[in-house]
Amino acid sequence: MRVEIINTGTELLLGRVTNTHLGFLAQSLLGLGLRVDRQVTVPDGVAIAEALTTAMARADLIIVTGGLGPTSDDITRDAAAEAFGRKLIFHPEILDGIAAKFARRNLIINDLQRPQAMVPEGGVALDNPNGTAPGLIIENDKTVAVLLPGPPGELRPMWTNEALPWLRKRFAHSLAPVHETTLRILGMGETRVQILVEDEVKALGPVEVGYCARPGEVDLRLIALDENLVRKAADLARAKLGDVIYAGGIETMEQVVVRLAQAAGKTVATAESCTGGLVANRITNVPGSSEIFHYGWVTYANEAKMTELGVPADLLEKHGAVSPEVARAMAEGALHGSGADLSVAVTGIAGPTGGTPDKPVGLVYFALAGADGRAQVVERTLLSTRETFKYMASQITLDLVRRALL
Amino acid sequence: MRVEIINTGTELLLGRVTNTHLGFLAQSLLGLGLRVDRQVTVPDGVAIAEALTTAMARADLIIVTGGLGPTSDDITRDAAAEAFGRKLIFHPEILDGIAAKFARRNLIINDLQRPQAMVPEGGVALDNPNGTAPGLIIENDKTVAVLLPGPPGELRPMWTNEALPWLRKRFAHSLAPVHETTLRILGMGETRVQILVEDEVKALGPVEVGYCARPGEVDLRLIALDENLVRKAADLARAKLGDVIYAGGIETMEQVVVRLAQAAGKTVATAESCTGGLVANRITNVPGSSEIFHYGWVTYANEAKMTELGVPADLLEKHGAVSPEVARAMAEGALHGSGADLSVAVTGIAGPTGGTPDKPVGLVYFALAGADGRAQVVERTLLSTRETFKYMASQITLDLVRRALL
Repeated sequence: MRVEIINTGTELLLGRVTNTHLGFLAQSLLGLGLRVDRQVTVPDGVAIAEALTTAMARADLIIVTGGLGPTSDDITRDAAAEAFGRKLIFHPEILDGIAAKFARRNLIINDLQRPQAMVPEGGVALDNPNGTAPGLIIENDKTVAVLLPGPPGELRPMWTNEALPWLRKRFAHSLAPVHETTLRILGMGETRVQILVEDEVKALGPVEVGYCARPGEVDLRLIALDENLVRKAADLARAKLGDVIYAGGIETMEQVVVRLAQAAGKTVATAESCTGGLVANRITNVPGSSEIFHYGWVTYANEAKMTELGVPADLLEKHGAVSPEVARAMAEGALHGSGADLSVAVTGIAGPTGGTPDKPVGLVYFALAGADGRAQVVERTLLSTRETFKYMASQITLDLVRRALL
Repeated sequence: MRVEIINTGTELLLGRVTNTHLGFLAQSLLGLGLRVDRQVTVPDGVAIAEALTTAMARADLIIVTGGLGPTSDDITRDAAAEAFGRKLIFHPEILDGIAAKFARRNLIINDLQRPQAMVPEGGVALDNPNGTAPGLIIENDKTVAVLLPGPPGELRPMWTNEALPWLRKRFAHSLAPVHETTLRILGMGETRVQILVEDEVKALGPVEVGYCARPGEVDLRLIALDENLVRKAADLARAKLGDVIYAGGIETMEQVVVRLAQAAGKTVATAESCTGGLVANRITNVPGSSEIFHYGWVTYANEAKMTELGVPADLLEKHGAVSPEVARAMAEGALHGSGADLSVAVTGIAGPTGGTPDKPVGLVYFALAGADGRAQVVERTLLSTRETFKYMASQITLDLVRRALL
């Protein structure tokens, strides 16, 4: 089966927005045993029709993203109707649904919304609970085209909840699902992972082994036609790599932490300096995190560390804010202030300025309190841009909590 | 001038790697007055030759990324030579250069490196100080093709230092820079923006008007050949839309807030419930934010709101945590606790659970304290997924601060 993706949007070709749809869709299609053969980005406008017609000559499945909205440059719906030679039919129930969404926000619908209620003859409309424009599926003898809205918050749930089940059913007879699992590793380089794992995993049978390195971490991907083989390969990798594997499948570090804390019936508090709230933000991205997370502090200034976390002034003066002593005092202050079972603190120099020869940009101290005995302190130097530094530091902070909860 | 980009690499189509080349090249080309008309991703292998041939029929400039390395799947060089009908000529001085790089790392060059010293007849080799494969430029009467290595650490400096100056010279007579500005709008839908702005802007002259909607906000894009016309169009849009425009160009909301606070010499404190630290995290993503941001609280539990921000227990009992009264008390508590000039608080129901008929999922209260008089409270209902809800709420929180600083 040949699969092509058409991403529409002038903003992509102006370099204003990065295309994250391709990665999302490609990974999801891989689960169906489908690989993307070609991807094209075209600007809003007439190029969409031409790209569709070209792809229809070759592809069994075409996924088009973007251009379903209500403004003048949203023409994907019309282009698809034209390419498939179908009339657009007005569906009053879709417009009523949009009007109801507007009403819930105390807004009145205007005429420009009407094109979103048009469906090509014989097409299927896909519900969009997170926006106004429905998705669409159109097919002829040769090709199925799935049209999805551009905003990721609308596209992703629509793909997962509507389009994917539809495709699974429609192509049930021609799919040869591959099985895949990803092990997420923090604190070991990809060549070390490869040396420890690859030969022995491949000796088990026909498994495709892939690596995806990101700052500070590695995804180890195992793909095979035989589900049992993937499981065996993953078990072997787990035995070889141990607890540097922080998650399997698509779980994130923050999901692991919330799940482990819920299971242990423990609460966690955060005291952040250089990560500036990112650790708390990531924890609270997880539904149900309010069970295990009650208190977080962002003590960006020394004074805040003193008044909010009770860090002694002389400790700050003697050792500086970026020191093992202050990290420990922050964690202990957060533990006492919150009454949580565990607390974690992070203090470092995010850069780009603020480094000294003794304490360079990238230096970070992490402290965990509430496990046995005295607060445990970890030192790292993370060299990266400001935002990546913050991400890497938040990842290590959460990993300390994960290890304490294991 | 028509510009097309061909990105090669199976890893892009498997969703393992995100394409960041397109954004980098597109932004750089815009500076030359060139816009990317089309971008395609093809897997390593024969599809490259076909994509090149197709693009050559249309484009004046083609940029190809990836596939210049030494392994068997690197065939961009051969594909380009074939598409342009040129022989590949061995350049011993290139191989000597690669050998010298190997020697510096105490490695001995092997035969696999030899193809990297082949240059299509009449072509130009571009120096690669950060890797082994040189870039290449080939041209015929109609089309110039620039071939760049795939690793971003090699591609970016080669583009900036070698390819860009070459193109600037080569196309000196045909470049007609386009001018572009983007106005970022919060709190007005895209159709309303279009109704207020488009006709009058287009009446000014040949301006391209584009919209990019994101949750809760809209980018309004104005592009024209005449710089003056873009400026006039932007001025007109500003006059029509007023202060819903929070930024022009590529500035983010948090950058605007930090810039305005720095200029006003004011400090800002945050008290977050439902955003869980995201507001503080966004502020601290901006270099230099430590000047204006000293204290942030993530008071996720009622008890934290009481002990850390001094929210009275009876207020929580009577009105609930998601109420204008509690939002105001949080903001006032943060103001007093931090000594900041301004403070902002946010409390709401992120979902997916926790809603009631009276207080549905998505309900949020925002409060700003420290401006004139009593803390100002804003109510919104934001319907979305948990993470998008948090983002939209953080955006409105920051916007309250922006408006107070104007």
